[in-house]
Amino acid sequence: MRTSIATVCLSGTLEEKLQAAATAGFDGVEIFEQDLIVSPNSPEATAALAAELGLSLDLYQPFRDFEGVEEEQFAANLARAEAKFQLMKRMGMTTILLCSNVATATIDDDEVVVDQLRRLGDLAERYGIDVAYEALAWGRFVSEYDRAWDLVKAVDHPRIGTCLDSFHMLSRGTDLSRIAEIPGEKIFFLQLADAPALSMDVLSWSRHHRVFPGEGSWDLTDFLARVAGTGYSGPVSLEVFNDSFRQADTQRTAVDGLRSLRWLEANVSAAREGNASSAHTGRDRVRLDLQPLPQVAQPRGIDYVELNTDNLGALTRQIHQLGFRFVGFHRTKPHVQLWRRGQARIVVTEPTGPENALIETSDKSTVAFAVSTPDADSTASKTYLRGIGFAVADADAAMERALLLSTTEVPREQAHDEKVLRGVFAPDGSEVFFGDGNGEDPQWTDEFGTVPDDRQSAIDHINLAQPAHHYDEAVLFYTSMLALTALPSQDVPSPSGLVRSQVMSSADGAVRMPLNVSPDHSPNALSRDAGSPAATYPEHVAIACDDIFTAATTAVARGLKFLAVPQNYYEDLAARFDLAPELLDRLREHNILYDRDDEGEFLHFYTSTIGSVFFEMVERRTGYRGFGAPNAPVRLAAQHRRNTES
Amino acid sequence: MRTSIATVCLSGTLEEKLQAAATAGFDGVEIFEQDLIVSPNSPEATAALAAELGLSLDLYQPFRDFEGVEEEQFAANLARAEAKFQLMKRMGMTTILLCSNVATATIDDDEVVVDQLRRLGDLAERYGIDVAYEALAWGRFVSEYDRAWDLVKAVDHPRIGTCLDSFHMLSRGTDLSRIAEIPGEKIFFLQLADAPALSMDVLSWSRHHRVFPGEGSWDLTDFLARVAGTGYSGPVSLEVFNDSFRQADTQRTAVDGLRSLRWLEANVSAAREGNASSAHTGRDRVRLDLQPLPQVAQPRGIDYVELNTDNLGALTRQIHQLGFRFVGFHRTKPHVQLWRRGQARIVVTEPTGPENALIETSDKSTVAFAVSTPDADSTASKTYLRGIGFAVADADAAMERALLLSTTEVPREQAHDEKVLRGVFAPDGSEVFFGDGNGEDPQWTDEFGTVPDDRQSAIDHINLAQPAHHYDEAVLFYTSMLALTALPSQDVPSPSGLVRSQVMSSADGAVRMPLNVSPDHSPNALSRDAGSPAATYPEHVAIACDDIFTAATTAVARGLKFLAVPQNYYEDLAARFDLAPELLDRLREHNILYDRDDEGEFLHFYTSTIGSVFFEMVERRTGYRGFGAPNAPVRLAAQHRRNTES
Repeated sequence: MRTSIATVCLSGTLEEKLQAAATAGFDGVEIFEQDLIVSPNSPEATAALAAELGLSLDLYQPFRDFEGVEEEQFAANLARAEAKFQLMKRMGMTTILLCSNVATATIDDDEVVVDQLRRLGDLAERYGIDVAYEALAWGRFVSEYDRAWDLVKAVDHPRIGTCLDSFHMLSRGTDLSRIAEIPGEKIFFLQLADAPALSMDVLSWSRHHRVFPGEGSWDLTDFLARVAGTGYSGPVSLEVFNDSFRQADTQRTAVDGLRSLRWLEANVSAAREGNASSAHTGRDRVRLDLQPLPQVAQPRGIDYVELNTDNLGALTRQIHQLGFRFVGFHRTKPHVQLWRRGQARIVVTEPTGPENALIETSDKSTVAFAVSTPDADSTASKTYLRGIGFAVADADAAMERALLLSTTEVPREQAHDEKVLRGVFAPDGSEVFFGDGNGEDPQWTDEFGTVPDDRQSAIDHINLAQPAHHYDEAVLFYTSMLALTALPSQDVPSPSGLVRSQVMSSADGAVRMPLNVSPDHSPNALSRDAGSPAATYPEHVAIACDDIFTAATTAVARGLKFLAVPQNYYEDLAARFDLAPELLDRLREHNILYDRDDEGEFLHFYTSTIGSVFFEMVERRTGYRGFGAPNAPVRLAAQHRRNTES
Repeated sequence: MRTSIATVCLSGTLEEKLQAAATAGFDGVEIFEQDLIVSPNSPEATAALAAELGLSLDLYQPFRDFEGVEEEQFAANLARAEAKFQLMKRMGMTTILLCSNVATATIDDDEVVVDQLRRLGDLAERYGIDVAYEALAWGRFVSEYDRAWDLVKAVDHPRIGTCLDSFHMLSRGTDLSRIAEIPGEKIFFLQLADAPALSMDVLSWSRHHRVFPGEGSWDLTDFLARVAGTGYSGPVSLEVFNDSFRQADTQRTAVDGLRSLRWLEANVSAAREGNASSAHTGRDRVRLDLQPLPQVAQPRGIDYVELNTDNLGALTRQIHQLGFRFVGFHRTKPHVQLWRRGQARIVVTEPTGPENALIETSDKSTVAFAVSTPDADSTASKTYLRGIGFAVADADAAMERALLLSTTEVPREQAHDEKVLRGVFAPDGSEVFFGDGNGEDPQWTDEFGTVPDDRQSAIDHINLAQPAHHYDEAVLFYTSMLALTALPSQDVPSPSGLVRSQVMSSADGAVRMPLNVSPDHSPNALSRDAGSPAATYPEHVAIACDDIFTAATTAVARGLKFLAVPQNYYEDLAARFDLAPELLDRLREHNILYDRDDEGEFLHFYTSTIGSVFFEMVERRTGYRGFGAPNAPVRLAAQHRRNTES
């Protein structure tokens, strides 16, 4: 499948855009007219640069407001088109995008439009140019793809074909079945964009909120499969207008874009394989060449979370207070230690290597805390979530797939006889590791020693902070690497602004990761790069247990600093739910929060924050599916108070 | 008029919100339930704090999903209401907001709803509480204010009244004429919000995009006048859900909010005065007590712009190249100098005072440039737009009005015999001065000497950069201080993102100020505070002339560094407009850009940037009204290249 990207998707100058597209691995680009106009380089120089970079110039776009006009206006439009054809010839370009008339059309008459398109085709023939006519969703008279196709069919000119754009079709909810009527060779171009489900005017939606396939709410796999079914074999191109992408790093956005196409291609390839055995007729002989990827199933769970800390005393004390047991130090890396609570595992790493090694205690179930280390809530602490280990069916396949999707492998030291855990960097800078999950203790834990623990406990969810400009990238990352699904996003009020939150989840709930965009948009707010301050918006690890009151009692006995819950909250709880007074008293006594849905109940409490990490202990009763979202403002307000007081 | 504000308008903790509302000068607040729930302070402590701050607690809000439900659900709702009434009693609150049912209503039957509201009224009576029933625009069955009023009328209970909210009425475009039917004493509360014209679902619009009156597109003056006409004399309260306000400084937002109410109050007061002579009948006897403000007319023009610079050589050289003449140094402040080109005046100030004084040349029409000063495009230069002087009909009235609208006066030194120019700080930190405009040279220019200059030239417009979080505040500021009008906003593409641009203008075009929000959202991007770096997003001063080619020729002869215009631009220009080849050649030769609208033509060129300021020279032909917006991307791209190259 030949991949392409419109220059309007990317930030920067035209030269920066071409460079980024080539580096990411695109085969070609669409040249957005404005990018060329504002460039100091001549069309010839631009074409030469593209050739040097190995990029084809697939489409010049767009030509607007051409058809359905009075004859005098039409003559001017033809002259304008000829100027553009001449320009394209200088660049060696052979396809132009013609958008259905938005502004100047006055005649809604098929005969007139067909005649004008045909005369444009004759002119295009002289320059060897193909015209791809596309119905804009807000076109004056032509706004549906099948109307555009009917017109193209009636024009019946070798230089006039149609362009399909998923945005203009899916945003209107148009019936897609007529795609199958179009012969692939009359589809002159294909543009893809996804979008979040929004209820707003389609023009604003299109101009500001498009995202790459896999980052929105539409089924682009089905869409591409339909177009592939016509025999279309041209470039598959991204045309995404997005306010954040326009501000983000050019190269990163290009990589994200290519990932979306490779992922989509593999999806369609897999679907085609699935259909291969069934009887297949029709036009699907000339087939789009589709590259598969190693298939991955959803993870079986979270093996571990890795926390990096320069405040080992405070962090391990808090883990201990939450009922975790010390398993041991890594046998060759004494600055790495493992803690567990049933199937919940936390790897704690110190940043500065072996010289920080602790003295191992004889009794591994407890650990001697360094008395001199500062307590929790030290804002100076560089404690942050460094990575997550996922239990997958086939770790090698997952890793191979991730690398084929243009991720960067995490460099790892290892001893010659150790199990190699391989992983890649996520968009937020955290590390994602793939382990072979077989339902028992993962093999790599042997390197820390053995502490049996059959308590019913596991990592319930991990709440990750995302930089605003790379939020959509993160959704695609977890979708394409781990086959997770994005649930609808929510806004959670906090004293410093709304927090946008969206849960990435596996179908069985074994993996749940709410992604949060902090209202703090400063570029350094969420940096996790080595050497730079960790995320300032705290992330957290939620531990599932089967008896929250016992967990809370243990935590109290061990001196845990709970995040305080206001009395007003419990008064409101009493007004909202018909709770037994004894239960209410117990909740209040243990700083436990409460929520309920149709399926069950949710009881949970929070710890104070160390560096940029805190913990939550949760008990889900009879199938509660949420994350206690109604209680999130309580937590955010309490954390805000701690921050502004400290 | 008693002013109030909902705590949900503001960022921070409940205590911070109360403090900010009191400091800004509000009479009372609406307590948003969530703010109370997340507070560690008891209801009694919160009420005590409000009393100490002199704030009345005007409304507890909101109570949701009450009416139109089955009897079993209704019993639970009544119990929930009683819990809230008890809470309110503890705080001494006497009015609750009841929103029309959104989520749980199943019965769309007036009789049922009336009965349930009446029973709520009986309960409220026991606690001495008034229930203000409001139609939410997205209510399940009750979504229009007049339907809510019909229900309240049918309930006919002293404790059940209605609440009018401008958002819910104006967002639906509801006919407002039935407001006049409601007796003022049955309007238990009044909430005001403005909003930009957006085409999106009304719930998202309401939850994210409300603004204070005067910052959106609605006629709140008419709205308040209608409600005042009913005899309503309760609090006039702001209820604004706005993503930016939630992130912005609490105190600033509170001041902005109070300004919007004072401005609105004065508008209604002025309209009432205007109507006083005409025959007046009806209910308008109990009248809302309205405080007037000194009235101001739109400015007659811009007297001057003041630029502050640490690179005097480069700045004055560029001003000279643009055809400005040196008028002189200020007679008592030798670090301040005045330049003019016809009626365009630029005051140039050095930051460090008299010790930087230049040697005055004998011939004031030219000035000796210091050869050693660096040239333009020095990014190190702290050259920025410090202030603007407006010619108004009555400077004293304008200043008095500004101070009554909670602005801060700019401190000024002055000699005892000098004309005092007084001014205030705008939201972006720049200074706004009011001068008595009488069509001739302003009196203060005497302090610099006299250089006659009758050339047809003036300041055409000034392009100001605004911090994103205070953008709406800026719109209200220029609306309320100078009676300017906001034109619809536009998005301009730049290599680093979209620039939101909105023009503040006087009706005759004598004052035109496009406000721009840079895509750089970092907090320091636009700081202009003394001692901190100036705006990094460049601002510019556009000078109108009557012959751009002569101006350009002079500039070339004097060595001006033009902002380069790409050849591709001129090729596209030839394709877009039917221009004479000679004109095209002349444009190209002089780096002049071109635009056209229905009224006329626009020719303009840009200089390079010094610090955060550059200049534009413009010629408007036969009534062109715009600002060359189609050419803005060319400028932004060229500036981006310079920035990334340097």
